[in-house]
Amino acid sequence: MTHSHPNSLLFRQLSEGVSNTYTYILVCTASKEAVIIDPVLETVERDSKLINELGVKLLYALNTHVHADHVTGTGELKKRFPLMKTVLASKANAKSDLQVKHGETIDFGRKSLEVRATPGHTNGCVTYVLHEDRMAFTGDALLIRGCGRTDFQEGSAQTLYRSVHQQIFSLPGDYSLYPAHDYKGLTCTSVEEERNFNPRLTKTEEEFIDLMNDLNLPYPKRIDYAVPANMVCGIYDLMDEKTRKTVEQSLDKHT
Amino acid sequence: MTHSHPNSLLFRQLSEGVSNTYTYILVCTASKEAVIIDPVLETVERDSKLINELGVKLLYALNTHVHADHVTGTGELKKRFPLMKTVLASKANAKSDLQVKHGETIDFGRKSLEVRATPGHTNGCVTYVLHEDRMAFTGDALLIRGCGRTDFQEGSAQTLYRSVHQQIFSLPGDYSLYPAHDYKGLTCTSVEEERNFNPRLTKTEEEFIDLMNDLNLPYPKRIDYAVPANMVCGIYDLMDEKTRKTVEQSLDKHT
Repeated sequence: MTHSHPNSLLFRQLSEGVSNTYTYILVCTASKEAVIIDPVLETVERDSKLINELGVKLLYALNTHVHADHVTGTGELKKRFPLMKTVLASKANAKSDLQVKHGETIDFGRKSLEVRATPGHTNGCVTYVLHEDRMAFTGDALLIRGCGRTDFQEGSAQTLYRSVHQQIFSLPGDYSLYPAHDYKGLTCTSVEEERNFNPRLTKTEEEFIDLMNDLNLPYPKRIDYAVPANMVCGIYDLMDEKTRKTVEQSLDKHT
Repeated sequence: MTHSHPNSLLFRQLSEGVSNTYTYILVCTASKEAVIIDPVLETVERDSKLINELGVKLLYALNTHVHADHVTGTGELKKRFPLMKTVLASKANAKSDLQVKHGETIDFGRKSLEVRATPGHTNGCVTYVLHEDRMAFTGDALLIRGCGRTDFQEGSAQTLYRSVHQQIFSLPGDYSLYPAHDYKGLTCTSVEEERNFNPRLTKTEEEFIDLMNDLNLPYPKRIDYAVPANMVCGIYDLMDEKTRKTVEQSLDKHT
């Protein structure tokens, strides 16, 4: 690849239309070392092809948390990129090659992602911050003009409120924020935009808690098999029989 | 807004899920002057809200061409931002506030978009290049690993092939390319990627022409009212009665 700056980042945002999930590929162009954030099982083929075309070395597949709305692509990616390591927060209490803690970093080439614990949607939610490129990957903690729900998987509105205010809104205003989902076709926001315009997180803590507790959202369609599959990073060999069958059936329906 | 660099760009990519169209908002953060590229009628509310929240002055709404698959949002945007000017290539032979030619520039604040004629999908297709930020907006001339069809609206496979090779592939390899559509959830590519991996444009001119002439694609669903509506930049007052009614009916169905 031709690149003007030795420290430049090659960045790709990819979307999966059924669960409206965003996957991110980040490449240090100097070393060609790369990470993928929140891959989705149904789009592993597409993402693998791109990774191969870019000619990069995939070091890590990071999940921002144990997702309830889709099965992670990390298990299938491990088959295609055997040296790649799966990453989850240690607080997720799940199986992964690497468990990371608040304050630790994940390095690829000359780039370094800071791990920030942002629990509330789940206990093990983290935000990955790439300071040098002024961007952060917030998972379901903070969405564009929204946030993840707090009514299952150890969710807590109070915890989420404090996570966002202390760990995300405290970043410089111009940092770009990339969420795990968007349902309106927006792809990106900034710290300052969300500080000013997030309809939920600009409320007081008490108002936020009331609002979140009153949402009455429907039971997530995929949670019963997505969570157990994601607790083992989507690795089929580690899934119990029932989960594996349900994941396979969901894939058949998709194709 | 807080921004680290006086010449920085605030950039937002937005998608519309029915026609899989990408709309782009570009803001010169020093002056807060902005442009929007390829807005869609159905998402004008969302885009206007964002433009207002960002507190920017919208100077221009650019269409890369007269679209056949969606009605442009420029007409509705003009109602909300009366100082905004609509832009189309003079070769489009359509109504717009400004008609631009190959080699001209569109300036907003300290930023400048170069107009490059890239006909072939339609006669009036242009690519807008933002050299300083190493990015280009290719419309339907070049899609990610694909290209626009050439079987209607004065389409010509030979013309398209030459446009892409002479005007887009000639840009530096690391320039990011943003298309008008993607159907697989990809958001961005680079000149080098497409030079190497575009399955159509890496062929010889003769092979490309044969391939495009053999596609046998279905008749576009919206073309009969989208083209006449877009020929007048989606301005209702300028549409003939029949087109206006059909556009209004299509909006009713959408909501």
